Amino acid sequence: MLARVKVQDLRTPALVVDIDDFDRNIDVMRAAHPGPRLRPHVKAHKTTEIARRQAAAGHLDFTCATPREVIGMAAAGLGGDLLLANEVVDPERLEALAALTDARVTIAVDSEVTIDTAARAGLREVLVDVNVGLPRCGCDPEDAGRLADHARARGLTVRGVMGYEGHIVGVEDRALRSAETEKSMQLLLRASELAGGGIVSAGGTGTWDINVWANEIQAGSYVLMDNAYAHLDLPFKRAMHVSATVVSVSKGGTVSSGGWAVADCGLKALGMDHGDPVIDGAIVWSVNDEHVIFSPEEPVAIGERIKVWPSHIDPTVAYHERMQVARGDEVVETWEVDLRGW
Amino acid sequence: MLARVKVQDLRTPALVVDIDDFDRNIDVMRAAHPGPRLRPHVKAHKTTEIARRQAAAGHLDFTCATPREVIGMAAAGLGGDLLLANEVVDPERLEALAALTDARVTIAVDSEVTIDTAARAGLREVLVDVNVGLPRCGCDPEDAGRLADHARARGLTVRGVMGYEGHIVGVEDRALRSAETEKSMQLLLRASELAGGGIVSAGGTGTWDINVWANEIQAGSYVLMDNAYAHLDLPFKRAMHVSATVVSVSKGGTVSSGGWAVADCGLKALGMDHGDPVIDGAIVWSVNDEHVIFSPEEPVAIGERIKVWPSHIDPTVAYHERMQVARGDEVVETWEVDLRGW
Repeated sequence: MLARVKVQDLRTPALVVDIDDFDRNIDVMRAAHPGPRLRPHVKAHKTTEIARRQAAAGHLDFTCATPREVIGMAAAGLGGDLLLANEVVDPERLEALAALTDARVTIAVDSEVTIDTAARAGLREVLVDVNVGLPRCGCDPEDAGRLADHARARGLTVRGVMGYEGHIVGVEDRALRSAETEKSMQLLLRASELAGGGIVSAGGTGTWDINVWANEIQAGSYVLMDNAYAHLDLPFKRAMHVSATVVSVSKGGTVSSGGWAVADCGLKALGMDHGDPVIDGAIVWSVNDEHVIFSPEEPVAIGERIKVWPSHIDPTVAYHERMQVARGDEVVETWEVDLRGW
Repeated sequence: MLARVKVQDLRTPALVVDIDDFDRNIDVMRAAHPGPRLRPHVKAHKTTEIARRQAAAGHLDFTCATPREVIGMAAAGLGGDLLLANEVVDPERLEALAALTDARVTIAVDSEVTIDTAARAGLREVLVDVNVGLPRCGCDPEDAGRLADHARARGLTVRGVMGYEGHIVGVEDRALRSAETEKSMQLLLRASELAGGGIVSAGGTGTWDINVWANEIQAGSYVLMDNAYAHLDLPFKRAMHVSATVVSVSKGGTVSSGGWAVADCGLKALGMDHGDPVIDGAIVWSVNDEHVIFSPEEPVAIGERIKVWPSHIDPTVAYHERMQVARGDEVVETWEVDLRGW
C-alpha cells in the first residue's frame, strides 16, 4: 500500500488547494448561475483540471486571457465555446487560433486594427470590447456600432459585446458597488444596442451576483479566491494557500517576544501587486525573493509548516508548476498548472 | 540563409537582454572585483548561460538561493564552489545536495536545527549566517561562536560567516549607505572573530564597492539591473527589458490628448513588489494580469513594440521560460531560464 502523502510532507513552497472549500465554491456558483450564465475565466487558475471541474458543474463556455490558454483548453477537450477576452495583434498566434479544429474561438476587438488582424488571420467570430469605465482596452460605447459594422464588412460574425467593470469589483460597500455596476452596464447595454449580436459579457467575482445586466458573467477568482476578494461580502471561501516551511526563528519568534520567524515563501511564489500575503495569527512584515518574514502570536518551530494566503491569486498561480490538492491534511491529487505563458 | 530575427518580431511579452549593456556590466565588475572577490548571486537571473559568462569573466564561485539553483549550476559544470546562502531544512533536498559529485556545496546555517539537519543530510561545509540588521535569517552576532562550535562538533567545516545588509543596499545617499554598511559589517566582523573560518561574505549590488569589510561580495543584480537599483549612483546599466506589443489605444493615446495605450506585459510577466515598471517617455498608470496601461508623450500605434523596464528583476525573470538576447535590434541568441523553481 502506498504511503499517504500529507500536506506537511510537501516540498515547499507548494500551492495547496483545499478540495472541500474548492468544491463548495463550485457548488455555490453552480446553484446561483447554472449553465451559460457563467463563462468562467481560466486566467485565475491556468489549470485545465480546474476547468474540467467547472465544466462538470455545467459551465461549458470559458473565458481566456491569452492564446496559450485558448490552445491549451482546446487540447484538453474544453474548446466548446472559448472567448479570448483580450486584444491580440500577433498574426502567427491568431492564425494558430483560427486553425484549431476542436474549438469555437471568439476574440475581443476594440479597433479597426484588431478587427482587420483577426479577419486576416481567419478568425470568424468576435465580441466588441467596450470601455465601461476601467481605463484599459475597450472602445467608446458610441463606437460599438461602427466597429460591429466594420467587423461584419470583413466577414466576421459579431456575437455581441463585452465590458469589464474592473474598477468596481473591489468596492467594499455593496450598495455602492451595485450602483456603480449599473452605471457601467448602462454603457454596455447602449453599446449592445448599437452593435447587436446578443451576448452581453461582463462581470467578475466582485460583481458576480450584482451584475444583473450582463447575460454572462466572466468571474474566475471565485473558485480559488484570495485575500483581496475575501474583504468583500462573498459566499466563496479562500481555497488555496501556499504551504511554507519555517526556516529561521529570531529573538523568541513571536509578537510578544519582539521576535520574528522566516518561512520559505517569497516573491517568486506570490503575486505581490495586491500587497503582502496574510498568515493567520501573525503580523506579516515583508516578503523577499525566497522569504516571508512574520511575527506570530504563538511560537512556531523551525521545520513547521504554515499557511501563507496570497493577496492576488492570478499572478501567484502563474509562478507555480503544479497545485497539490488536499482533503484535510492528506494530499489526494496533483494538478498541473498547464496553461502558463502566452 | 536564415532570416534574421528582430526584437520587433518576437512573440510578446518577451524578456530581452541587451548584450552590449550586459557585457559592459560584466566588464565593469570584472575590472573592479576580479576573481573570488565577487561571488555572483544567481537568484537575480536563474540562468546558467549568464553564470557561464560570469565564470568566463573570472567569477568562478557562486551564490544560490534555492536547492534547485545549486543542482542546476552543478549540472551545468559550474559547481566549483557554490554557496547556498539560505536556510533549508528539507532532508530530501539537503541529501540531494550532499550527493552531488560535481559540486562543492556550502550551506548557510543560523541555528542548531539547521546545523543538525545539514549534518544529518551529509553536507560537509557551512557558513554561519549572521543578522547584521536586516530582520530575516541570521543569528545574533554574539551567537556565531557557539553555533560554529556546534557545527564543528557535528563534523562540519565552518568556512566563515555571511550577513546580508539588505536593509541598506537601497539607501540613495551614498555617504549614509557607506556609514550604515560599516555599522553592519562591524557586526559581521565581530561574528567572524567568534566563528572563525576566514570567509566574510556579504554585500549586494547597492554596496558592491562600498562594502570593503567583507572579503567576498554576493552581488547579483548588477548584471541585468532594474529600476530600483537604477536610482543609485552605480556604473551598471539596465540590460534587460520586457518587450511588449501595443494592443489598444484610447482617446488619442497620449498624455496631451488625455488618452492612454495598453500593451501586453502584465502582472504575470513582471515582479511587482518594487512597484510599477517604467516606460521611457510615458506615465505608467497601472498593471493588470496581462496589461500595462500607460500614457506616452508621443503617440504609439497598435502593433508597435515598447520597452517595459521592470522595477525588480529577480521576480520578473522567475516568470519567464527564456530570455532573448539582442545586439541592437537583432536577436542573436536565446537563453533558457533554467534555474526556476525550488
